[in-house]
Amino acid sequence: MTYHAPLADMDFALKYGAALLPALEQGFFGDLGMDDVDAVLAEAGRMAGEIIAPLNRVGDTQGTTFKDGVVTTAPGWKEAYRAWCKGGWNGVTAPAEWGGQGLPQVVNAACVEMWNSACMAFALGPLVGMAAVDAFAVHGSDKLKGAYLEKLVSGEWIATMQLTEPNAGSDVGALRTRADRAGDGTYRLKGQKIFITYGEHDLTDNIIHFVLARLPDAPPGTRGISLFLVPKFLLNADGSLGARNDVRAHSVEHKLGIHGSPTCTMIFGDQGGAVGYIIGEENAGMACMFTMMNRARLAVGLQGVGIAERATQQAVAYARERRQGRTPGMPATESAPIIAHPDVKRMLMSMRSLTQAARSICYATAMALDRAERGADKAARHAAHAHASLLTPLAKAFSSDIANEVASLGVQVHGGMGYIEETGAAQLYRDARIAAIYEGTNGIQAIDLVIRKLPLSDGAVVEGYLGELRRIVEAVNATNDPALGWSGVRLEEAVESLTRATRWMLAQLDKGTDEALAGATPYLRLFGVAAGGCLLAQQALAALRLGTDASSRIALARFFAENFSVQAAALERIVVEGAAGVIGADAVLAH
Amino acid sequence: MTYHAPLADMDFALKYGAALLPALEQGFFGDLGMDDVDAVLAEAGRMAGEIIAPLNRVGDTQGTTFKDGVVTTAPGWKEAYRAWCKGGWNGVTAPAEWGGQGLPQVVNAACVEMWNSACMAFALGPLVGMAAVDAFAVHGSDKLKGAYLEKLVSGEWIATMQLTEPNAGSDVGALRTRADRAGDGTYRLKGQKIFITYGEHDLTDNIIHFVLARLPDAPPGTRGISLFLVPKFLLNADGSLGARNDVRAHSVEHKLGIHGSPTCTMIFGDQGGAVGYIIGEENAGMACMFTMMNRARLAVGLQGVGIAERATQQAVAYARERRQGRTPGMPATESAPIIAHPDVKRMLMSMRSLTQAARSICYATAMALDRAERGADKAARHAAHAHASLLTPLAKAFSSDIANEVASLGVQVHGGMGYIEETGAAQLYRDARIAAIYEGTNGIQAIDLVIRKLPLSDGAVVEGYLGELRRIVEAVNATNDPALGWSGVRLEEAVESLTRATRWMLAQLDKGTDEALAGATPYLRLFGVAAGGCLLAQQALAALRLGTDASSRIALARFFAENFSVQAAALERIVVEGAAGVIGADAVLAH
Repeated sequence: MTYHAPLADMDFALKYGAALLPALEQGFFGDLGMDDVDAVLAEAGRMAGEIIAPLNRVGDTQGTTFKDGVVTTAPGWKEAYRAWCKGGWNGVTAPAEWGGQGLPQVVNAACVEMWNSACMAFALGPLVGMAAVDAFAVHGSDKLKGAYLEKLVSGEWIATMQLTEPNAGSDVGALRTRADRAGDGTYRLKGQKIFITYGEHDLTDNIIHFVLARLPDAPPGTRGISLFLVPKFLLNADGSLGARNDVRAHSVEHKLGIHGSPTCTMIFGDQGGAVGYIIGEENAGMACMFTMMNRARLAVGLQGVGIAERATQQAVAYARERRQGRTPGMPATESAPIIAHPDVKRMLMSMRSLTQAARSICYATAMALDRAERGADKAARHAAHAHASLLTPLAKAFSSDIANEVASLGVQVHGGMGYIEETGAAQLYRDARIAAIYEGTNGIQAIDLVIRKLPLSDGAVVEGYLGELRRIVEAVNATNDPALGWSGVRLEEAVESLTRATRWMLAQLDKGTDEALAGATPYLRLFGVAAGGCLLAQQALAALRLGTDASSRIALARFFAENFSVQAAALERIVVEGAAGVIGADAVLAH
Repeated sequence: MTYHAPLADMDFALKYGAALLPALEQGFFGDLGMDDVDAVLAEAGRMAGEIIAPLNRVGDTQGTTFKDGVVTTAPGWKEAYRAWCKGGWNGVTAPAEWGGQGLPQVVNAACVEMWNSACMAFALGPLVGMAAVDAFAVHGSDKLKGAYLEKLVSGEWIATMQLTEPNAGSDVGALRTRADRAGDGTYRLKGQKIFITYGEHDLTDNIIHFVLARLPDAPPGTRGISLFLVPKFLLNADGSLGARNDVRAHSVEHKLGIHGSPTCTMIFGDQGGAVGYIIGEENAGMACMFTMMNRARLAVGLQGVGIAERATQQAVAYARERRQGRTPGMPATESAPIIAHPDVKRMLMSMRSLTQAARSICYATAMALDRAERGADKAARHAAHAHASLLTPLAKAFSSDIANEVASLGVQVHGGMGYIEETGAAQLYRDARIAAIYEGTNGIQAIDLVIRKLPLSDGAVVEGYLGELRRIVEAVNATNDPALGWSGVRLEEAVESLTRATRWMLAQLDKGTDEALAGATPYLRLFGVAAGGCLLAQQALAALRLGTDASSRIALARFFAENFSVQAAALERIVVEGAAGVIGADAVLAH
């Protein structure tokens, strides 16, 4: 099974789902044109298909080895990583002054999707690393950036994000890793971190850890957390690698999937203290952490899209090849490819439409990040930042949820073969499962959406977004193309359900949080089926206007509206009527 | 993580979900009383928790070994199997004349659930074996039964079901294994079978294969299939083991889950032909096969219930223990068990209510089988048989679908720990995934429900069942207990949606099959959320009447109605409005 970058789907999602085309036409990204973007994506597609995709199976079957504190990645990984860095792919969005390409986030979003389609376990290390580097570039001192940033942008070194501890998972504020002032402006860290992605590996000769820790006099909770840069090897005055720092990997986890990615328990300071350099101010680590987390959350959403795309490609290819049973009227001596059976078509259409919807949501989120960075004035940047903040938990959770669903359908399309590891469908199912968990579980994303994002600007941010969706619905209804089936009705109902549920949520928040929290997860899903349906419809309308590929874009949008957006009314009821049944569940859960 | 049989939930599902209590009170099972049933279940629960559950992890980590055609099961499995047989658990429903206990299917259903909660990979071998033995008992000749049946009932030997071939999976009629008449009433088989559960193992000293094959002059398709008994070792005249038959395991699959269960490729007749004995008439194998398959399908539904129950128990236990974050008003220095967070409660309630709904559907199906076997007159038996036929695909597909959902929620409740294999949640997720595939994929179940089962007696069978559901809805609405929340409304709407969708399906079948096939899977889900909700409500009403455990039964039924039955209207629309969008999907799937 090979991977072919779905360049046409990505191009459409970028141009019409994420509205990249009008931005380019308005010169928002300077001279950059859609031809340039398409050329970048085509080259990334080649890199993903030819260099990275072949790592996927060997990473799964051989995983990583851990011996005497040393992690060795699977055969071929180091070489592929070097080729990938040489292509400049680690620094797609990084500023040119640090050696980056300075391209838009939205273009990189498509690239990140491709690396993850090709091999999620491989893509994960640089993905987490670049999220940390984004925060470093914003919050780090010039001196530290001078010493580390260029090599992190080139990929010569990889960064890690170190938040989680045994008693501090979703509750980051509970962390205990301690940082003492050394008196010379540096710090000494002691503690243990768990579930650290690429905490140790052999891809690069230095690893730069970004570590959350607590000063001895720090206030409790999240207001007492600071962020430190802790290199595996300290640097000599000339920038060359010096002494080994007091940080090491203690063990590597045995996981359900992404076997190629080493997930480490890390020990800091068991020989006196790991040397750390502060990023930003003391006790202000959460702000840096949120910059990291938000980038990483969008990236995890893109992992979901990537896995879903790969699973869909594999299932469609199998369904075209595998013959079983007959279509009505076929002679008994013949057999049909299973793609001809309506139930299989339903599965494949679910896979493809969920994937394209999630892709569109993620790309739109990345586009909002670009507008937040590059908008013409402060007001525009601020509005775009709020827009990106609203969409980030949706991008992360909806995309990773559908990745599990799509990967499961991929197994199902293969029948018994799907349960055999050699087929590859099962690996995607195993790999996908982490995306709904890490970088904030999807429950945490839903809570973030409801508790922190809906109230932004007193609800004006979400109301503005609902207005955008409503304009798409009006355009669909104005089109009146019979090929769209029930799309207009279903999308209109979905946006109305989302509007009512949003206002209900905002009203609850004035009273307390439990009622809102009880419905947060179905509310996020409701947001996804409404927004995803609208973004697909927008692409269908563009295709109709252009007269290219219209029947396919319309069929996809229609399927999503008729099968997923249609669920909005039930989700609304679950949100607004279901809280009492959740909160009152203690009698059931007592035994 | 240990397993505790949920005796109270099983007792309630049996008595009020499957209506076992009125049957016992009417003397339908002779002297058998509910005390006897509860005693059997308590003893089975001990066997499951103490003897079988400890096999689960070692079976997963060590799997089976395959060397020179010999399969060795994991340490402790052979001893546990012997203890289980000694307890008489292999022959719970088998007639006393063959050494069985002659207990009702519905009682065995609860036992089968427990074996699968304890260790699905272990339970699977005997489960498939007993389904084959059920068919053998009905269709086998007295001579063959005299030679084999008693040892199959006691578990001294285990039977296999051999249907699948590389080009004959869902399409059984395409199989090519050949059986030649030997001239002495026996046959010689040649061919290859794949995905054969427990095709070879060391648990017993003989293995009795039930094999579908085709005579040289057989008509094509399913009308030319015959069923043969092919022992691993032939029997001497005195019944002792004789020569090795010409059948062997060629390899064992490397699967996503159920590692303890050897899934074999089997070779028949590469040394001239495996000796086989026909079961029933030549070319009449499909009838025998359907007896086997129907038992096996219900059993797979029970596997789904078993895995879902185990995942729920583990998640509830973890959520009570793991502390993270705070509930509103809690001081910053404290932390709450995560079970106190509404989003976690939602997950646990989803798990528990889906499990109890699926359990109730499976037990009700088993009860229908008992009525089909033991009904007072032919008309009653015929009606019960039709009822069981209607419910069997629902029991299989709904329960195995929700097993995947519940196991996935189980991983999610554990957060990052859920992705680590040592925790055990991931194993349940991997093990569960096969149940929606084998014994007829869930797509095949949905098609069977729509194409074969809805038209039974011109739709009178399903209409009769809808009438039963409507009576439950009336009783719920008559109760008017505010603790039931929106249950009455949601269940009424769900049964109405199911009724309309059923009539639409029947109307489509008069015209052709594609439109009906396109909606078969969502139709089956609609059936599940309506019937499951009604069966839980029926138990809540009984609890209210009895005044025992009422708040917990009501909360569970309410949660299901408000969160799952509420989805019925959308599912109805997907069925009746969605077909054109599925059938017209070729433009999307062409690339």
